Amino acid sequence: MMDNFTIVEDDLQNGDTGELVKGVRIMVEGKFKNLLDSIIEKTPSFNNYSEVIGSAITSGITEIISDLKSKRS
Amino acid sequence: MMDNFTIVEDDLQNGDTGELVKGVRIMVEGKFKNLLDSIIEKTPSFNNYSEVIGSAITSGITEIISDLKSKRS
Repeated sequence: MMDNFTIVEDDLQNGDTGELVKGVRIMVEGKFKNLLDSIIEKTPSFNNYSEVIGSAITSGITEIISDLKSKRS
Repeated sequence: MMDNFTIVEDDLQNGDTGELVKGVRIMVEGKFKNLLDSIIEKTPSFNNYSEVIGSAITSGITEIISDLKSKRS
């Protein structure tokens, strides 16, 4: 169903405080980009890659947490 | 259930080809970082933030696609 995407972990420095913040970067290219483009085209509430990926992370993490809870009980 | 996280869209230059590739960056900080740390601690198959977020994106996008398909039929 889904094609692979590249994801890397890196540190970013906060320009104001100089503090290092961990970040995770997803590359939007190739078949993954085509898939996101097609989702944005068909879904009026999604206007850009951040919105699709943000929504996917929210529902995906909610699913991971509910899996964890059902395993514990 | 989920706390907010910061997500930004930016371009990254491929060092080899000079080509610009779109990327989406998720900041891992605050309550979102605590949530991910707790998931990693409880789930032996997740070793770092990239793995949790990658897995969440995969299942979240699969869900978005299946929602789109059910609306169309």
